[in-house]
Amino acid sequence: MNFGMVARVIGSLLLLEAAILTIPLGVSIYFQEQAGIWGLALSMGIAAFVGVVLVSLRGTSSRLKNREAILIVTLGWFFTSLFAALPFIFSGSLTSTADAFFEAVSGLTTTGATVISDVEVLPKGILFWRSFLHWVGGMGILVLTLAILPSLGVGGVQIFRMESSGPTPSKFTPRIAATTKILYTIYLSLTAVQVLVYRFAGLDLLDSFIVAFGSVGTGGLSPYNDGFVRHSGNVLLLVSVGVAMIISGVNFSLYYDLGKRRFRQVLRDSELRLFLAIIATSVLLLTWNLLGNVYDTLAESAKMAFFHVSSVITTTGYAAADYDLWPAFGKGILFVLMFVGGSAGSTAGGVKVIRLLVAGKLVRRELDRLLHPKAASPITINGRVLPAEEVKGAVSFCLLYFFVFILGSLLISLDNIDLFSAVSATAAALGNIGPGFGAVGPMQTYAFFSPFSKILLSFFMLLGRLEFFAFLILFSPRFWRE
Amino acid sequence: MNFGMVARVIGSLLLLEAAILTIPLGVSIYFQEQAGIWGLALSMGIAAFVGVVLVSLRGTSSRLKNREAILIVTLGWFFTSLFAALPFIFSGSLTSTADAFFEAVSGLTTTGATVISDVEVLPKGILFWRSFLHWVGGMGILVLTLAILPSLGVGGVQIFRMESSGPTPSKFTPRIAATTKILYTIYLSLTAVQVLVYRFAGLDLLDSFIVAFGSVGTGGLSPYNDGFVRHSGNVLLLVSVGVAMIISGVNFSLYYDLGKRRFRQVLRDSELRLFLAIIATSVLLLTWNLLGNVYDTLAESAKMAFFHVSSVITTTGYAAADYDLWPAFGKGILFVLMFVGGSAGSTAGGVKVIRLLVAGKLVRRELDRLLHPKAASPITINGRVLPAEEVKGAVSFCLLYFFVFILGSLLISLDNIDLFSAVSATAAALGNIGPGFGAVGPMQTYAFFSPFSKILLSFFMLLGRLEFFAFLILFSPRFWRE
Repeated sequence: MNFGMVARVIGSLLLLEAAILTIPLGVSIYFQEQAGIWGLALSMGIAAFVGVVLVSLRGTSSRLKNREAILIVTLGWFFTSLFAALPFIFSGSLTSTADAFFEAVSGLTTTGATVISDVEVLPKGILFWRSFLHWVGGMGILVLTLAILPSLGVGGVQIFRMESSGPTPSKFTPRIAATTKILYTIYLSLTAVQVLVYRFAGLDLLDSFIVAFGSVGTGGLSPYNDGFVRHSGNVLLLVSVGVAMIISGVNFSLYYDLGKRRFRQVLRDSELRLFLAIIATSVLLLTWNLLGNVYDTLAESAKMAFFHVSSVITTTGYAAADYDLWPAFGKGILFVLMFVGGSAGSTAGGVKVIRLLVAGKLVRRELDRLLHPKAASPITINGRVLPAEEVKGAVSFCLLYFFVFILGSLLISLDNIDLFSAVSATAAALGNIGPGFGAVGPMQTYAFFSPFSKILLSFFMLLGRLEFFAFLILFSPRFWRE
Repeated sequence: MNFGMVARVIGSLLLLEAAILTIPLGVSIYFQEQAGIWGLALSMGIAAFVGVVLVSLRGTSSRLKNREAILIVTLGWFFTSLFAALPFIFSGSLTSTADAFFEAVSGLTTTGATVISDVEVLPKGILFWRSFLHWVGGMGILVLTLAILPSLGVGGVQIFRMESSGPTPSKFTPRIAATTKILYTIYLSLTAVQVLVYRFAGLDLLDSFIVAFGSVGTGGLSPYNDGFVRHSGNVLLLVSVGVAMIISGVNFSLYYDLGKRRFRQVLRDSELRLFLAIIATSVLLLTWNLLGNVYDTLAESAKMAFFHVSSVITTTGYAAADYDLWPAFGKGILFVLMFVGGSAGSTAGGVKVIRLLVAGKLVRRELDRLLHPKAASPITINGRVLPAEEVKGAVSFCLLYFFVFILGSLLISLDNIDLFSAVSATAAALGNIGPGFGAVGPMQTYAFFSPFSKILLSFFMLLGRLEFFAFLILFSPRFWRE
């Protein structure tokens, strides 16, 4: 293991983080917030100092090996989260280390769970930083999964498969820099359009940015104490945020295809079609369930169904109503969507639609084999026959997701909480959603958890964001041998 | 499709059912119960009549084809359940058809969920019948999975794999009759020993039989309104029932091996070891969780932990305490065990330990492949390399189990019930456990459900007992074509 090289890459990430901190610092300077300026500037200094120290470490340079790439990805997310937590502490917004770490991980993994009940008293710069982490984290996962990993060759494809995506290989320009540029263009354009639309829909400029960060990064931290409830009457805002979240839940390589005018290829993409079909079905069922039970009109029921289905399936977690009070069936639909998640190569979390598609095809194939034991038809996605190893990869991921979810729920249930709340908190952390049900419902916070549970839940968020394998493998003794 | 042959086999099953009804009838005659005698005799007459009609249908005889075998298995369980429901109606014990069908399916699938709040006023013959169905159903699933299906050749192995078991092929004598005889001997011996032990532990003779039927068949219908709570102080009884359930959750082919003095083979059986390890771990954790929180002494906590872990993992469902009131962690452990279930080739339901073992090995293999992408080590069980198709079969089953569980929970949640109760009712029906949590907790009944939900839950019980594929395939148009 070339630890020197690993440290130097982590160092560059911290330098990048220090650079990025200038933006919230600018916000705090504009609003003349002493606490914000002080907290952000100090954090920037520390990140820059540690970054410089790490970058200047000596050591040999060599081609990245598989295990070094895994270590960089995992430690990279961990250390950037750790330094992202500093502004919360130095600005006095949070006093507990566990709280600050939780909030930073929740931001950077685009989860959107919070331990802060009154966010409206936070310095604007800190409020901005919290949501800006969503934006950075969302971009980070896109670059990682669609640009860096596919370019790493065998090792890259290897991590790519686990780290972010289903079995669709990248269709991007092979060079990392070029792909990253394309991604930035798409990501920045989406963000810019959203800021304009939200501004037009009545939000002030700062809130427009914050909401756009949360939507495009499928994060979900809100600048308001009541989530989106105060805007629940603003149809234009709810519908545009709803659409924006769905856009961010689609594989970003499809936007590249769109730019290349490959319309037929996009329209025929199996994952996209299934993703949209699940959304349509869920919205219909939820509208039916809400009408008469919660809302009196079809329009209101449909609006709320659309917004929350979009919010949960894309693992964003914005709430314009306390859906914890909805009927069991409606809650059940949202609970299931927490596991589905978005598409591979998007900023969304969860199991991902492509893997469920592969799993569903495998099950159907087993049913067919019952009738025709000797006719083993291969599994295809978008007309391509999937190699057995990719099928196993997708299915193993689904299984591992459930195993970790179950063990995690048991651990969290030890924290003096009812079982259903513990289960939904674990699902919300693993799937990078944010709010769950019951004690962690959309109008609650994670503040009541013990520091141990907060660290554990932060770990689940990272685990979900990095799609398990890369993280779990660090606990294997074999990883460190040799 | 040779429907004549299918009908004749179903007819023989109904004749067998009519013959079996003489035993509860004898009980009712002994206790001089008018309602019981009348209800059981009339049901016997009807089953015998329909059986004779079906058996005398003309038609060609031919070797069983795959789809005929599937149809016989599925319709066989459905029709014997339907006729098993008659005594409840004719004796006046239940007035609703849905209730009677639910109770009969719950008996025959060895589930143990009930819609009857006051079972102690039932005629003894009917009380006996209810639990005798567990015994018959348990024997039925053993004969089906360990004797009939493996003997059917390719088609048999095909159903065998889905219908009952993991990838362990039968080690029994190949001929059906011989295997069945061995199974009967083991099953009858286990039952006889249990009746004696329970009698010695203080139960009266009738209750000893009823409890033995519920334990050996891993059913769980109790002759008492409070389950086992009235006997919760009877350590000898609780421990012996606990041990008996575990014995019935083990693959019965291991008892054959024991009889052949293949001790080392039994001790080294991977599924047995994992099954016992899960039990031991769960008992330890649950004891730790109960001590101080629910019970004051280690002995009481350990006793209750052992009894309920054994009851739930074997999908029996006996309750000596209202575990719905236990802390979230303890409830969580029991909830997870509801999915684990017993071993393949046992009378227990659930996903089955062997499939989880295969799934776990697949996930671990994927982790290994991360580090050594080109070293694809095969998955082995008991030293045997598993063919890829068997791995896919086991994994598909796990996935299908979760899919059906999720869809089922959503459907049940429409019945004016909280989400967690709906989820646990579905898990309890699919896994053939019986009681769940909340509204269907161990001190509640399923009486409050709508007739639609009762039929649906009955369907889940059959689906779980027949391990999905054989049942689901009937809904495929391809099954009926050709």
